[in-house]
Formats: sequence, C-alpha cells, structure tokens
Amino acid sequence: THVSYLCDLNRHLVVCLWMALCCLWGGLSIPDPKYRETLMEMEASMQTGGQVVLSEKEKLLNSRLLQMKQEEVMRKDFPPAVHFFKARDLIEESPLFSLLQKVPKGAALHVHDFSMTDVKWLVKNVTYRPHLYMCSTDAQSIRFMFCSQMPKPLPRCSPWVLLEKLRAMTVNVTELDDRIMKNLTLFTELDPDVVYPTQDVVWERFEKAFRAVSDLVSYAPVFRDYYYQGLSELYADNVMYLELRTLLSEMYELDGRTHDLTWTLKTYQDVTRQFTADFPDFFGARIIFTIHRGVNSTVMDQVVKTAMKLKRDFPDFMAGFDLVGREDRGRPLWYFRNELSLPSDKGLPLPFYFHAGETSMSGSEVDQNLLDALLFNTSRIGHGFALLRHPVAKEFSRKRGVALEICPISNQVLKLVDDLRNHPGAVLMAEDHPLVISSDDPAMFGASGLSYDFYQAFVGFGGLRSNLGTLKALAINSIKYCSLPAQQQEKALAMWQKRWDKFISENTQ
Amino acid sequence: THVSYLCDLNRHLVVCLWMALCCLWGGLSIPDPKYRETLMEMEASMQTGGQVVLSEKEKLLNSRLLQMKQEEVMRKDFPPAVHFFKARDLIEESPLFSLLQKVPKGAALHVHDFSMTDVKWLVKNVTYRPHLYMCSTDAQSIRFMFCSQMPKPLPRCSPWVLLEKLRAMTVNVTELDDRIMKNLTLFTELDPDVVYPTQDVVWERFEKAFRAVSDLVSYAPVFRDYYYQGLSELYADNVMYLELRTLLSEMYELDGRTHDLTWTLKTYQDVTRQFTADFPDFFGARIIFTIHRGVNSTVMDQVVKTAMKLKRDFPDFMAGFDLVGREDRGRPLWYFRNELSLPSDKGLPLPFYFHAGETSMSGSEVDQNLLDALLFNTSRIGHGFALLRHPVAKEFSRKRGVALEICPISNQVLKLVDDLRNHPGAVLMAEDHPLVISSDDPAMFGASGLSYDFYQAFVGFGGLRSNLGTLKALAINSIKYCSLPAQQQEKALAMWQKRWDKFISENTQ
Ligand SMILES: [Zn+2]
Ligand SMILES: [Zn+2]
Repeated sequence: THVSYLCDLNRHLVVCLWMALCCLWGGLSIPDPKYRETLMEMEASMQTGGQVVLSEKEKLLNSRLLQMKQEEVMRKDFPPAVHFFKARDLIEESPLFSLLQKVPKGAALHVHDFSMTDVKWLVKNVTYRPHLYMCSTDAQSIRFMFCSQMPKPLPRCSPWVLLEKLRAMTVNVTELDDRIMKNLTLFTELDPDVVYPTQDVVWERFEKAFRAVSDLVSYAPVFRDYYYQGLSELYADNVMYLELRTLLSEMYELDGRTHDLTWTLKTYQDVTRQFTADFPDFFGARIIFTIHRGVNSTVMDQVVKTAMKLKRDFPDFMAGFDLVGREDRGRPLWYFRNELSLPSDKGLPLPFYFHAGETSMSGSEVDQNLLDALLFNTSRIGHGFALLRHPVAKEFSRKRGVALEICPISNQVLKLVDDLRNHPGAVLMAEDHPLVISSDDPAMFGASGLSYDFYQAFVGFGGLRSNLGTLKALAINSIKYCSLPAQQQEKALAMWQKRWDKFISENTQ
Repeated sequence: THVSYLCDLNRHLVVCLWMALCCLWGGLSIPDPKYRETLMEMEASMQTGGQVVLSEKEKLLNSRLLQMKQEEVMRKDFPPAVHFFKARDLIEESPLFSLLQKVPKGAALHVHDFSMTDVKWLVKNVTYRPHLYMCSTDAQSIRFMFCSQMPKPLPRCSPWVLLEKLRAMTVNVTELDDRIMKNLTLFTELDPDVVYPTQDVVWERFEKAFRAVSDLVSYAPVFRDYYYQGLSELYADNVMYLELRTLLSEMYELDGRTHDLTWTLKTYQDVTRQFTADFPDFFGARIIFTIHRGVNSTVMDQVVKTAMKLKRDFPDFMAGFDLVGREDRGRPLWYFRNELSLPSDKGLPLPFYFHAGETSMSGSEVDQNLLDALLFNTSRIGHGFALLRHPVAKEFSRKRGVALEICPISNQVLKLVDDLRNHPGAVLMAEDHPLVISSDDPAMFGASGLSYDFYQAFVGFGGLRSNLGTLKALAINSIKYCSLPAQQQEKALAMWQKRWDKFISENTQ
C-alpha cells in the first residue's frame, strides 16, 4: 500500500508538471502533438492492465484483438448498450466472444450456489429424475419436491403432481419443459423492459426462481450433480478456480430426512476434490457462507457463531462470510454491528466478503454499507456499484487493496444500469482500481461461465482502449484477490500462466 | 490551484491516518461509531457545497428541504429514475420543485439560441403573425418562412401555404396548433423510448426541430421578441445571468433581405440592454459564438477569424467560441488544430467554451475531445459526460478549475444515460469537482429555466446527501465560472447574495 500511495503522489506531480508546461506554451500555439501523445499514453497506462508489458507473440494477438474490437464497435446494435437478454445472441455470434471464451480467465470470485448451473441442464436432467413432484403457486411460480410419496400440500399452492405422470399425460412435452425452464431463470425472449419494468418486479421474480431452483437442488443426490455440473461449466469456459457464495441449506432425502449444514459443506468439499481429481488443471474451489440480510439479530448471532466454527473446522475450504438478498430491502450492515464484531471479540478470525453498494440511492442507510463493509475489514466488496459516489470509501478500498467484485450483467438485469458503457466499472477500470469481474447468478441471467461478463467489461467498459494487457490483468487480479493464502496463490498463478502461454501460442499461429 | 493541490494531499494524508487507526483497532472490536461518524462527515464535507457554513435561518430551511427530499425519495416513481418526458408531471407536482423554482440559481451557462424559449409561445404568438408560410418536408418535418409574397418552393417539400389561410380553412385549429408544436420540440406524451429508440433517431429529430424553430426565429422581428421572451423565462425562474451559445445566423426580413452576423450580435446586445433596463435585478447576458462541427477546415479558418474580430469589437458582450452539433458524428477538435490555434498565433485571444465528451464510446477519436479541449485551454467544458473515464483530463480540469457545464435532462433525452442517479454528475458532485448545472436546450426537452435540471441534480445526483449548501454552492459556481471579469463577477455575486438572503427570509417565516 505504501508503494501505491507513492504512485498516486507521483501521478499528481506528473500532472502538475504537465500543467506547468501547458501554462508555458498554452497561450502560444498548437498544443505540441508530442505532449498530447504523452498525456494520452499516460491515461492508457493508468487503466487496468496499462502497465502490462506484452511479449512479441502477445502483441501479435493484441493487434488481432483490437481489430476485432474495432469491428465490434461498428456493429449497428452495440451489445453492451443493449439489455443482455437481447444482446446475448449478438454476443454469441461475435468472433471476439469466441476468442474471449478461450482466454484463461483465472477465478470466478462472486457466484451464488443456486444459480451457477445452466437451467437447461436442470430441466433436461434433473426434472426427468423419478419421484419429482411439482405444484403451481398462487403467485405464478412453481415449487418442486423429490419425495418417495405424495408430499403434504404447500399453502397457497395447487396440489402436488408427480412430474413423471404429468409428462406422460402431456401432448406437447417440449412446451411443458419450456414452461418449467421459464420459472427457473429471469431470461426471457420477450422484451425484458416490458416483462421487468421495475427493480421491484425483477427482484420478486428473481427470488421466486431462486426458490424453485433451490427446491430441486436441495435434494441431496441432485445437489452433488448440480455442483459438479456447475464446476464443469466454469472449467469449459476456462475458469480455473471458484469462490462460491452458499447458504449451506439443509439438503433433503427422498424420505424427508435432512442433513445439516456441515454435511452440505463437506459435500461441496468432496465434490470439489472429485472434480480436481478428474480435471487436474482445475485449481479448486472454496465457499463463502452466506445468510439472508432479512434475518433478525438473534438469528444473526447464531449464524455468525456457526460461521466462526466452520472457519475453524474447515480453514482450507471455508473462505469467509457474507450477507445476501436485496440490499435496498434488507437490514444494513451497521444494524448487525454487534454480531459482526463477534469474530474479533472472540479472537476467532472470520474473513468477510460483503455485498455492498448494490444500490442507486445515495445517502440512504443502505448506502452506508460500503463504508461499513470497509470498517469491518471486508476482504473484498461484492458489487460496490455505488463506490464512485463515496470518495472516502473509494480511497479506502484503493489504498487497502480491497477489490470490488464487478458483475456487469447482473447489474444490468437487476436494473441498476442500462447502457453498460455507463457502468461505474468503466471508470474504475480507467483508474486500475482493484477489481475482478464475475457473474453473480449466471444461470438466472441466461449466461454461463465468465466470458459474457468479460465481454461486457472488455468491450463495454473498456471501449476501444482496453487490450490484451487488460484481460491479463483481470485474470491475474482474480488470483491476487482470492482468499487463498500466498503460497497457494503462487501455485494457482503458475498454473494460470501455463494455460495463458498455451492460449497465446495456440492463437498466434 | 496550489491550495487545492495541498487540499488533495491533505485528503490523502487524512485518509491514510484513518486507515492507520483502522488497522490498529481493525482486528479488535466494533468499529468505533465516532470514527465511523467522522468518515461519514468527511465524505459529506467533500461534496459540492459540503464546506458551506449555513446560518441559523438557512439551517431551518435546510431541515425543511431535507424533509421534502425524504418524501420525494419515498415516491413510487422516483422522477430522476424515469425519462424526463414521463417525469415532468411528477416533478411539477412536487413541493420540493416549487421551492427550487424560487431558489436564486445564479447563471445559466450552457443554453443554445434556438431552444431557449417555450415552444408554446412560438405557436401561440409567432405562428399567429401575418405573412407566415409553412410547408411539409418529405422527411416528416415542417419548414416556415415569413415573406411578403409566396416564397419559392423548397426541394423535397410540399408547396408553401399561408398559415393564416390554412387556419381559416381548418375546423380543428387546436389540433393544427398541436401538430405544429410537436414539430418544434422533442417532447412527447407518447412513450419516449418507443418514439426515440436510438441516439440516431433522437438526434435526427432534434436537428429537424431545431431547423423548424430557426426558420421562425431567424425572421428579424420575431428574433428580438423570441430572445426577450427567453430572457423573461429565465428571469421568472430566478436565473439572473445567461451565457448563450449562438450560431449568429443571418436574420431575414419580409422582403428577403438579410442581415449579417454582426447585426445579429448587436441585436442580442440591444435586447439584453433593454431587458436589464426593464428588470434591473437581472444581471445580463453574453454570447458564445458557435459553428457546426461538420464544416471543413476552410470554413473553420474563416469562422475563427470572424470570432477573433467579434471578440475584439465586442469584448464585453462576446464571451468566446465553441463548436456545436453531435460530437459522435462531427469532426474532432484535433482535426481543426491549425484553425483553433489562430487566436494564440495572432495574439488575439479568443476564449474557448468547447463541448467535449458528450459521448458513450471510450477510446474513439471523438473521445479525445476532452483532453484536446483542455490542451486548447478551454475556459469551461460543455457536458464532459465522459470525463470520469479520463483520469488525466479529470485531474487537469480539477486542478485548473475548468468547470463542466452539466445538463442532466439533455443527457437523458439524448440517450447518454437512463437513470439520472447513474449520471457522472453524481460522482463529480460527490467530489466537489468544478461544475455548473445548465439546461442545454430546455424548449426542445419540454423544460424551462434551470429548475428542472436543478431538481435532477439536487434529488437525482445528490440523493439524500445534498442539502441547501449544495444549492448555494451550485449558484455561486455559476457566477465563479462565468466569463465575466473579476470585478463584474463580484457585482453579480453581490446581486445574487441579496436575492439569496431575500429567498431565505421569505421561506423561513
Ligand atoms: Zn451476489
Ligand atoms: Zn450544448
């Protein structure tokens, strides 16, 4: 941090120097093209990856990349300016996107448990398993339960039907499957601005879909497969490490028995081991235990104590703790100040990975979450969408290297921003603020892996300025700011470098 | 500038100090509420107006103001988050808006000639004058001409009709007037996102409407009245000084004779004198001569020379020079570097007030306009929407006190930003960046005066944090950054202070 502070000082001095020069020749003639060039280069060098020195081969790939980006910008519908649901097809047909899929992107540091895996897989695989019951709620959503016999009816729900039976009676099974799928994701072919006119509407639908997925995924046998499948999707997208936010829900069996949260955590750990055994160039995963921010202090007290215990018992797999749910409607961090102080009071360290600043409203109580997250020594900040409006918190995060987990598509779908070129990430990347790019709830948004969000950050935030150095820096950031201890980070970085070199040589032939 | 530099240094040091303290107690217990409070206050004090010390009476009004804002935020449709065409009614029914109308707002520093006056006045007054001909173009717009006889037909236009005759033959005159009005403004009761789906569409309609208005207003007798009426609207909105960007078009008479641009400038000066004689508590106006950025170098060379001559001949009325038209489609400033260097080459100073950074696209040639405007020693920056993405240019503008003219409603209508809480002005105000609030083309957007834009800045940018000090600082900024020499600024400031004191005492009884 001392070095970065000095850098900032230097930046001030350099700008002062230029300004002095400008004053000297300012009133005289055309601004010297060389000075102009220098200022432009200075700005370019200040962006994320601006200091990265590219090898000859990398330079080769970089010019191809910039060429592709130039063509991207010329397109009539510029995808970052369009709602992702309409932009997805445009992105998928872009050659630049195909290249981004191949980039070794490092780690996904902000992904939630029940939206990490493609909903098509849920429908085509999970809902075809035996013993699955389904019902429709009065609020136009659906619920599921795996059960060895007809489950007790849920309040405000239709009677349960065995899905297997329903399918047998249905003429158009494709249409039924489509209808089920629509209930598991926000993605829609319809006009998203009409379907989701407000933040309230989109969040309500989000929570319903999350609930329906969790019914399916909380069934213990599905849970293992779901998580394994999710890791496969990340792996296929050239992501090598994951920090998964999870509620550690109780998992159930056919006979109604449930497992406690330690079982869930252990299962995550088992499946992760299995996956890295199957794919040795996948580095691994850790979990961040989360609780809904709507709970009361009594519950929070218990949960924080549980989290401390889990961190003590699983120090290598459990990264830390976080609160989830819509910030604007939940309790602010400061409300839980006593509970969140327990770990340091008791001397049982519990790293925090707080969501904060996922709000449009300046000056509200919720808007203080950013500063409070930093005061509680958060290790990273989830979103930090409002950070630019908080100059003290911003400086704090920069100087202390508290990275933001920026999830462009999530912020667009949840209606914080419309045109992604206006996303605060564009500004933060122009200043090389500590940050990583992540996907939040990819399955919920019709995305997968990190490539879609990388596309938005690279093309939307970066405009024509970001380059291969930017991609490299974003990948390196994701390892630098992950929860792994230094030694493990080095190993991960070495693994990433190998994959990067391979990527470069494979794409410069 | 040295002082501000030191301030910034201090800011760094203070933050460092806090961070050191945080490190000390960071791992120990609840963050000390007092430290937290201090950091929050520090952030509040860094915003525009954060340093303003309020008198007892001002504090009284301030708490009323914050109360009103709290209620504003609770409204279902939060106006800054809604397109202005839909938000206007919501804003007008807000008690906070009524109060903002009364606030002495200082100067309007970014307004264009043919969109300063309400189009209703154009329709109800100007189009009812004799000798006015109208025709419809193939491109679904209309054109006008005052003429003593039937004018020659325009290409791609219907034949001219005398509007007086047309009205006499029309059953539903109200409907005709409405139709005319729709052609003079972008404002519409329909869904603006449907009517103006893209930047291209909205700019095309903008240019057509501007053209139709200019047909009406370029008629010499109308021109005088139009400008006088425009000043009246500003005055009614408690604005006391104007810097008007004008093309100084040739004005025409009934017989087709035209006046040159010096006549136009002199008429502006005459009418301004007349107005300040009629309303002695209106401080006055100056003009900024503008040319379309689509012209070639030969034309630019002539125009810059003309501007230099005008500045020499009318040093007290002519503030400076600027280029207008859509930046994304026009030539960048650097293209005209030779022509723009003429004033300093010839030793005939010509202050610049460049539009720059009114673009979403990072890294394009046009995106360099911001830095180039600063390198050409611009006195202010029109819009500067892209400034946050240019850290060097941002530092430059801050340190040299080159204020941004921020026009929130314009940027929303012209589709640079959707939810005004995401406008870069919110960030710049959080940092007390040098800036003023203006209206750009109020009549085109269905606004009037500065109050609508002040509302957006105060409620939308400022959220719950901005206060009466913010309003005071914005008004003072508008005088501090205007083109008037120091002595005149002092006079203007004294006049403003008198009006401000009156405003405070009238609203605290
Ligand atoms: Zn999240
Ligand atoms: Zn303008």
